[in-house]
Amino acid sequence: MSGTSPLWAKGTVALDAAVQRFCVADDVVLDQELFVHDIKGSIAHVNALARARILTAEERDALAGELVTLGRDFVEGRYLLDQRFEDCHSAIEARLTERLGEVGKKVHTARSRNDQVLTALRLYVRAQLERLTSTCSMTCERLLARAKASTAVPMPGWTHLQRAMPTSLGAFLAGHAEGFLDDAHAARNALELVDACPLGTGAGFGSSVELDRDGEAAELGFVRLALNVHAAQNGRGKLELFALQALHLATLDVRRLAWDLSLFASQEAGFVRLPDGYTTGSSLMPNKRNPDVIELLRTLAPTVEGAMLEISGMLALPSGYHRDLQATKGPLVRAFARGLAGLELVPSLVDALVFDEGALRAAITPDLYATDRALELVMAGVPFRDAYRRAAAEIPSLAERTPDESLRARRSLGSAGNLALERLEERLRALRQ
Amino acid sequence: MSGTSPLWAKGTVALDAAVQRFCVADDVVLDQELFVHDIKGSIAHVNALARARILTAEERDALAGELVTLGRDFVEGRYLLDQRFEDCHSAIEARLTERLGEVGKKVHTARSRNDQVLTALRLYVRAQLERLTSTCSMTCERLLARAKASTAVPMPGWTHLQRAMPTSLGAFLAGHAEGFLDDAHAARNALELVDACPLGTGAGFGSSVELDRDGEAAELGFVRLALNVHAAQNGRGKLELFALQALHLATLDVRRLAWDLSLFASQEAGFVRLPDGYTTGSSLMPNKRNPDVIELLRTLAPTVEGAMLEISGMLALPSGYHRDLQATKGPLVRAFARGLAGLELVPSLVDALVFDEGALRAAITPDLYATDRALELVMAGVPFRDAYRRAAAEIPSLAERTPDESLRARRSLGSAGNLALERLEERLRALRQ
Amino acid sequence: MSGTSPLWAKGTVALDAAVQRFCVADDVVLDQELFVHDIKGSIAHVNALARARILTAEERDALAGELVTLGRDFVEGRYLLDQRFEDCHSAIEARLTERLGEVGKKVHTARSRNDQVLTALRLYVRAQLERLTSTCSMTCERLLARAKASTAVPMPGWTHLQRAMPTSLGAFLAGHAEGFLDDAHAARNALELVDACPLGTGAGFGSSVELDRDGEAAELGFVRLALNVHAAQNGRGKLELFALQALHLATLDVRRLAWDLSLFASQEAGFVRLPDGYTTGSSLMPNKRNPDVIELLRTLAPTVEGAMLEISGMLALPSGYHRDLQATKGPLVRAFARGLAGLELVPSLVDALVFDEGALRAAITPDLYATDRALELVMAGVPFRDAYRRAAAEIPSLAERTPDESLRARRSLGSAGNLALERLEERLRALRQ
Amino acid sequence: MSGTSPLWAKGTVALDAAVQRFCVADDVVLDQELFVHDIKGSIAHVNALARARILTAEERDALAGELVTLGRDFVEGRYLLDQRFEDCHSAIEARLTERLGEVGKKVHTARSRNDQVLTALRLYVRAQLERLTSTCSMTCERLLARAKASTAVPMPGWTHLQRAMPTSLGAFLAGHAEGFLDDAHAARNALELVDACPLGTGAGFGSSVELDRDGEAAELGFVRLALNVHAAQNGRGKLELFALQALHLATLDVRRLAWDLSLFASQEAGFVRLPDGYTTGSSLMPNKRNPDVIELLRTLAPTVEGAMLEISGMLALPSGYHRDLQATKGPLVRAFARGLAGLELVPSLVDALVFDEGALRAAITPDLYATDRALELVMAGVPFRDAYRRAAAEIPSLAERTPDESLRARRSLGSAGNLALERLEERLRALRQ
Repeated sequence: MSGTSPLWAKGTVALDAAVQRFCVADDVVLDQELFVHDIKGSIAHVNALARARILTAEERDALAGELVTLGRDFVEGRYLLDQRFEDCHSAIEARLTERLGEVGKKVHTARSRNDQVLTALRLYVRAQLERLTSTCSMTCERLLARAKASTAVPMPGWTHLQRAMPTSLGAFLAGHAEGFLDDAHAARNALELVDACPLGTGAGFGSSVELDRDGEAAELGFVRLALNVHAAQNGRGKLELFALQALHLATLDVRRLAWDLSLFASQEAGFVRLPDGYTTGSSLMPNKRNPDVIELLRTLAPTVEGAMLEISGMLALPSGYHRDLQATKGPLVRAFARGLAGLELVPSLVDALVFDEGALRAAITPDLYATDRALELVMAGVPFRDAYRRAAAEIPSLAERTPDESLRARRSLGSAGNLALERLEERLRALRQ
Repeated sequence: MSGTSPLWAKGTVALDAAVQRFCVADDVVLDQELFVHDIKGSIAHVNALARARILTAEERDALAGELVTLGRDFVEGRYLLDQRFEDCHSAIEARLTERLGEVGKKVHTARSRNDQVLTALRLYVRAQLERLTSTCSMTCERLLARAKASTAVPMPGWTHLQRAMPTSLGAFLAGHAEGFLDDAHAARNALELVDACPLGTGAGFGSSVELDRDGEAAELGFVRLALNVHAAQNGRGKLELFALQALHLATLDVRRLAWDLSLFASQEAGFVRLPDGYTTGSSLMPNKRNPDVIELLRTLAPTVEGAMLEISGMLALPSGYHRDLQATKGPLVRAFARGLAGLELVPSLVDALVFDEGALRAAITPDLYATDRALELVMAGVPFRDAYRRAAAEIPSLAERTPDESLRARRSLGSAGNLALERLEERLRALRQ
Repeated sequence: MSGTSPLWAKGTVALDAAVQRFCVADDVVLDQELFVHDIKGSIAHVNALARARILTAEERDALAGELVTLGRDFVEGRYLLDQRFEDCHSAIEARLTERLGEVGKKVHTARSRNDQVLTALRLYVRAQLERLTSTCSMTCERLLARAKASTAVPMPGWTHLQRAMPTSLGAFLAGHAEGFLDDAHAARNALELVDACPLGTGAGFGSSVELDRDGEAAELGFVRLALNVHAAQNGRGKLELFALQALHLATLDVRRLAWDLSLFASQEAGFVRLPDGYTTGSSLMPNKRNPDVIELLRTLAPTVEGAMLEISGMLALPSGYHRDLQATKGPLVRAFARGLAGLELVPSLVDALVFDEGALRAAITPDLYATDRALELVMAGVPFRDAYRRAAAEIPSLAERTPDESLRARRSLGSAGNLALERLEERLRALRQ
Repeated sequence: MSGTSPLWAKGTVALDAAVQRFCVADDVVLDQELFVHDIKGSIAHVNALARARILTAEERDALAGELVTLGRDFVEGRYLLDQRFEDCHSAIEARLTERLGEVGKKVHTARSRNDQVLTALRLYVRAQLERLTSTCSMTCERLLARAKASTAVPMPGWTHLQRAMPTSLGAFLAGHAEGFLDDAHAARNALELVDACPLGTGAGFGSSVELDRDGEAAELGFVRLALNVHAAQNGRGKLELFALQALHLATLDVRRLAWDLSLFASQEAGFVRLPDGYTTGSSLMPNKRNPDVIELLRTLAPTVEGAMLEISGMLALPSGYHRDLQATKGPLVRAFARGLAGLELVPSLVDALVFDEGALRAAITPDLYATDRALELVMAGVPFRDAYRRAAAEIPSLAERTPDESLRARRSLGSAGNLALERLEERLRALRQ
């Protein structure tokens, strides 16, 4: 790509080609993701044109039929979207014209490239948010199942990476589960925000052709219109951020879980064994098994952050469409592709983890009972600050306690002795409806 | 602050003081915002301790009474939170102890600094999101009112900063209104996500003292519990991002509006006059009036982005509390203080704008009717690509058209001739309930 | 990519494939950029192995010869790096083994994948920084040439997008030139920071095989060693940021220039005409010519920012290699590919701009002389604050002044009447040496 | 700050006050840092006015004398910059006028608030970069000293948080030292970029008063001019980023060091004891000692990143001054204040660390010799891939090896057996000159 002679030393043709390449960028690659959504949007537009008697029933059937065929060809690999085309929109129009002649061209009537792109993007984003909601819910479900099976397994709890108090593996896993539940909730809320149909807003000014926008929205399954034509354009970029914000939250929770596993899997801790499918060897060191998958799961959060920032940095613009906005597609598509590829590995990973329960129990040293002891003294009437000092002094004598007693006594709602998992299960069920 | 001799050349005392300053940072300043919320959370905790018979009714009344008094003293300026204290939590406990002796210390029973901070933060965040929802709704309302009054005022529409087609001032303003309506929606959704009570989760492990967590949540007006003790801790940082994400969206829309006004107010455009209260002079140039306020409104978005990034960069951590998390408070509080200070100026600014309707109309040159013409040809049966070419050729003859005709013919839903403002008003009403 | 049945519903084989794809990601695509650099690093390693008598002269010649051939095959398109391979490093080793059998495998002796990657990355980054330095210098040169030819062309100067004082097109263009000069300076400084050879540091612990690291560095043209083995590993990510920081600065200056041109090309201003090669039409509106190229040039800055943030978010790690670090390659390569593709269009764009000198001159209204007038009064002994008020009052009478007089009188060094372009030319010359 | 009745419900006066507060923001607080630098810049300006015979020698002496006095009063706490003033520039002019009457006002002759601010900022940034260079150099020096004293102390090396090969504490510490050496290098390079004097560029257009700009630059110790008047304005924001980029690099290295210490200090590892001055207790748990200081050191990197992003997000502007640019001051000053406060704690922290050498040695299990063994086989002629397999199989028999043998044999340059610390010392010496 670099070559030896700089661009500005080349002739006009080379410059024109470079300008062209710069403008088109990698749209054809990104549009692999948008293709089927653009097909759907185009069918709805064709149907609305027919309802407005701009297309005859025959024209409608020809166009819609060909669009369906093309969509199937694409999904099944018989149609290749490649560098012959500038983007998926050009490719689809070219195919319609090739197959249907003049009728093919009519698909663009009373539609702008702008509202076409906006519609495909909304449909794409909605599909990604549905995947996200589903993956977060499934991760929550699997974590809850494992939590339920390990409510009686004691482990140390840490703050500041220092051992603090006994807790249970069940409490620890249910904690992660509740995080993903919140993420599923956030994804569903984002879905609600993006669920508005921009089809029919043209280049941001509408048109003198009155198509049935409510009908288009209904056909595409949107709950409301992106009503105002200026707002529809101005929403470009914000749409993307609505969705990436939700993705970001889930990647933050995956990062924390991956960090926990990374530490637990170290020789210093030895609390978990990662299944072989999730580790790799070293090219130099014969003794190594490295937890590459969980390390890469940590990188999803900065990938999404980078994408969000890239997009919001492009939005420092006045109203109306600007070509800058096209550059928001790359970060959006790359972040969702990478983010979901990672997130969708997590439910199986959760299932496959092998915890060393003996090592977890052995790590609960007597000093970890000091807080329990202090609170006992408080309940017996000792002021807290005094109880705190006495408990610190009594640590050696706490060695006879067991983790199991400590957990049983931990009765506050949501803690190891009183997890109330059914509440989380209920919230998950409600979200999935 | 810099001084002349470097820290590492100083004695131990200087070092200790420097370490102390580094750890405390500007908590006392930030906690001005949290103070009243910590009071509220502490009262709920005191009431729960009483219900669990850990406090007597007399102790409860003494503590709760003193907390109420302190809150009032703070709000009314009789109590100063300043550098004598490490943070608001220490300050409040110190006052209780000073006034009530041993009883005062009991406020900390069965509570950790961690859940105390989490609770105050949730209450604070909830209050900010309520302000945000309210401000976005009001901005929407004012924009809709001005849109309604200017549906018949023609103006050019731009894409790529190039004049494109006629539109109306009403359409333009309603477009901004719909943006803020989406932002109000997002803020309300965020409110739903953060509306969970962490009080009673201790340092992330709960405790053996079983307080009535559901009752505490109800007293504080939360709709659900942040149930799991680990999750409550792990939610630190995510809570802040839930809220800042919503704030961010609103600042993006303010930035676009401010950019529009900035361009409209230039001598090149001359489309709007900013009220004097929103402009300032130059220290050097006698001829200048500068639109400082709208320029500063553009900076809110990067301020919030910076804060979000600062926070999410601090969350690359394993489970459990780490001191890193305390550093999330600064960006949160600063972003909301600055962001809302700016956003809350916008409703009045919208009211005060003076548009030059003559200049807007005069800027609609004949070429702006070319798209109208092309679509007329299409409706008369000319294929779109041909109509496009013919319309381009006919531009000189379009000079006799008027903007008013163009707008009247713009019938597609959501565009200048068919704004359907009542749909936006209805959505606003629903959101406000 | 999404498919219909979620990953976690599939069998083990599907999961394994998904894990594999997630780990490999798009390395083969990114490694198109690293391929020749890895060849160079491998040749230096082979030569060092021979000097240490670990390879015979024959083995060295065979390996080095085959590496040279492979590099040439790759550059000339006879060798395709594609999905058959995990990355370029595997591909190269596979080819050597295919062609040379056992001898081929020896290329990996006493080298880790880690220092191999680090070396290829350093060479790649150095090459990009050289391109960056060169492009910024050339942009500066072209801007200076145009500035020199337009020192007598008056134009308004703006602050706050409000017209402020007369300046010259020469001053305006020289201002942009100095910006790119600073960027070239920053790029050269970054080059100095990354100019250190990590070859021979192994997986971050060195090895018992003592290769001639100084000789390797000299052969590869590095000015110093990345000496310490731990530091070499820990420098991953920082290396990338050193380089992207410099790229970022140049994209900020391109964004400002593009913004100026975007405004100047609007109908409201009409100060510049963009060459046809840099504009495109609209799919809907027959009357439009849109400045897409300059709009896309504005997006380079957020693209680089996104990449920097993505990388620094991945560096929140303890010492030593972690797989997270591999994910820094994507943002690095994408940001440089996109950033340089855009920046390298600028020198020709600068040459091709057509300014409307009449329109620029006509925009200098009498009020723009008010500051000149105030300073004349000051030189005549009037206190500045009084002069300021008098000049404001005298604006109507300033109409008889000409821009040319104003520019001639603007004598302060670096301003329109005294540009001292030779100082910038001299600094550019010095930087290029 | 929140109050109960929203701003837009209040009267005009409240609105005006709110607008005013929004515009002024916290300038007075931030300007504590700029005050002395503005004094210096003002003295240079006064001297240049005198050389141009715009001030008499008496006026110059009066103004310069009063500026010196004011600077001393400020540093020694006798002069308070507070909310009476909009910013430090107003405050200084007010004092001069109060003390010197009409003569005091002359300080603003032929200067704009713009170049005044730019000059004060450059001087401030230069001072911060000097502190940064000095702190990084000192941290490097202390790490090298400890490295030298611990070259013979074996410890495990990790990759992927998995134990990998033996290394030495000396190698580990020298690795961190080289990181800070690179940071000092980057800080010095940044200093070179910002070392240019903008005084005399006015509001971005220069003036008709020809002051001796070269003399001003020399008096203020700048090596060159920010020559072009437009460039000086356009450099706002870039100046800040030049400096913050360097600060960012150092905070990344502190974060990695802090992460290492955080893990080493855990009960799972037990490799280091943090001095008491750097740890704190828990409010709830009597058994805890928490490493708060090193945790807060981890947060410096995101703080600086947030500031950089905030600034670069504000720079999406056309040429010339815009009020947006003033909002870059907050993130700049806050990031340097916080970043340097943390970084300057590190040299003493390095001195105070107590490593548990026995625990480090004990953690070197036999499998860590496998790579040594594989390389021995290679040197004996076994192909690497075979040697790798054999070494893996022989791990049990490696138990009789000692870490000391392994380190002695680690002869490659820059690794535990051949640290070549003198090279780093030499580079540090060269940088400090």
